[in-house]
This record gives sequence, C-alpha cells and structure tokens, in this order.
Amino acid sequence: MECIFCNIVNRKAEAEIIYEDDNVIAFLDIQPINYGHTLVVPKKHYDNFLTVPPEELNNLIKATQFITGAVKRSVKADGFNVISNNGESAGQTVFHFHFHIIPRFNDDFTFKPRFKNYTSDGMKQYADKIRSTLSKYKDVFNG
Amino acid sequence: MECIFCNIVNRKAEAEIIYEDDNVIAFLDIQPINYGHTLVVPKKHYDNFLTVPPEELNNLIKATQFITGAVKRSVKADGFNVISNNGESAGQTVFHFHFHIIPRFNDDFTFKPRFKNYTSDGMKQYADKIRSTLSKYKDVFNG
Repeated sequence: MECIFCNIVNRKAEAEIIYEDDNVIAFLDIQPINYGHTLVVPKKHYDNFLTVPPEELNNLIKATQFITGAVKRSVKADGFNVISNNGESAGQTVFHFHFHIIPRFNDDFTFKPRFKNYTSDGMKQYADKIRSTLSKYKDVFNG
Repeated sequence: MECIFCNIVNRKAEAEIIYEDDNVIAFLDIQPINYGHTLVVPKKHYDNFLTVPPEELNNLIKATQFITGAVKRSVKADGFNVISNNGESAGQTVFHFHFHIIPRFNDDFTFKPRFKNYTSDGMKQYADKIRSTLSKYKDVFNG
C-alpha cells in the first residue's frame, strides 16, 4: 500500500518540509489544529510507536524537541502539545509513526476530555494488572 | 513551591506506581481518560519538554514505549495516545514534565478537533518562518 509519508520522504509527494536530517523529516500538517502544526516523522517506515527501534526513538524525540522550540518561537505560541496517536481508535490516520507538535495559545484550548473515576479498589486493580504485565516483559527491556 | 510529582518520587505523596528505574517513575493518573491512563515522569524536576536534557529524554521515551506496550496489553486497548502537554494553554496542570499514556478503544474516541485551513500562501509563509528560526538555532542542536 502507498504510504503518503514515505512518498514525502522520497519526494514523490509534496509537503512544506521544515527540517530534515539522515533519520528524520518534519513538515507542516495540511490540516492544522493551529498554524505551524508540525509532524515529525522517521524516514524509515514504522507503523506505530511500539514498533520504532530505540535508536530511532532517540533520534526522533531529540529532533522533536529541537523543532518544537523553533515552532513555538516562530508562531509565538504560549504552549504546545507533543502527541502521537496510535491506532484508529486513537485518531491515527496515517499509519507511519509520527509526533504532532501543536502550538497552543492562551485563548484557544477547548479540549475538555470526559474523565473517568476509579472505584475505591479499581485503581489498585488496574495498577496490579499493568505491574504484572510489565514484570513479564522486563527481560526484553534494556532501559 | 511543592511539586506533587517530586513528592511522589520521594514517597511524600502516594500514587499507584507501576514502574520505576534510576531515572524514571510511572504511575496511574488519578483522573483517567480511560482506566490504565498512565503518567511517565523523569525523577528529576524539569518544567516542560523543552528543558529536559537529551539523555533524560532518551531514558523517558524508551521507558514510555516499554510501559505503553504493557498498558495496552493489560487493558486490552485497541490503540493509545502518547501525549505531553506543555504550558497552561496546552492543558498542562502539573509543571513537572510527563508523558501521558492514554489507552483507547474503538468505541470511545470522541475528540473532534476544529481544524484550521491555510490560505494558498499561508502554509509556505509559516514554513518559511519556522525554517528561518530553525536555521538560527542549528548550531545548538547535536541531533
């Protein structure tokens, strides 16, 4: 299947590229939450956050930090979100991993999530489940 | 000023801690978007994404990836968001840098952002501004 981000990397599709190095490319989102909304993308194709190798993650997060500083300064943003959506249920629309950098302004934040509440035991039960899963996979993590 | 996340690190405040290593601690958000919503936090205090040193960023993103896999598996999520909010305008409420891991399910995604549109020249103008800022700071980035 054609991947639009791979096509941008290979210059088969157009984009307003603002940054590029050996591993990473960044360009403006054509459907911005705010002007200057930027996508930071590994040049190699990985479907989502969980499949990006550690070295690539390091390249990406460092470039994202650098680019975020410039985006914030350029559009005089008051704040910013750094977001990765993974899976359709999370709002991912291009299945080539990327970070969104979204500039934010004091008068524009309208995202009011509906929070859930844990029952009195619920929080510990969820924590236990995750701790147990983590302990099973501890040996595959070289953190 | 008291920092609640520093207090959690120092065991002066309680939390459902699910992960801890020399540099990173992770615990459940008490106000979850979905059950299993987790915060990944550097043990040292940094106000926001832009002030976290590169080595710490690397520790954090690797731990976040590892923990995300376990959270997703534990709550049988279909997808997930990895989010950092920076500045009040972006929804940051605790000014100690952290990543949110938010499990998502096929029937629960209700965030419909209001997108903006670039004018025909607007996109290039924003890209030019950011490229120019980036070029000024290129020498301070060791990507």
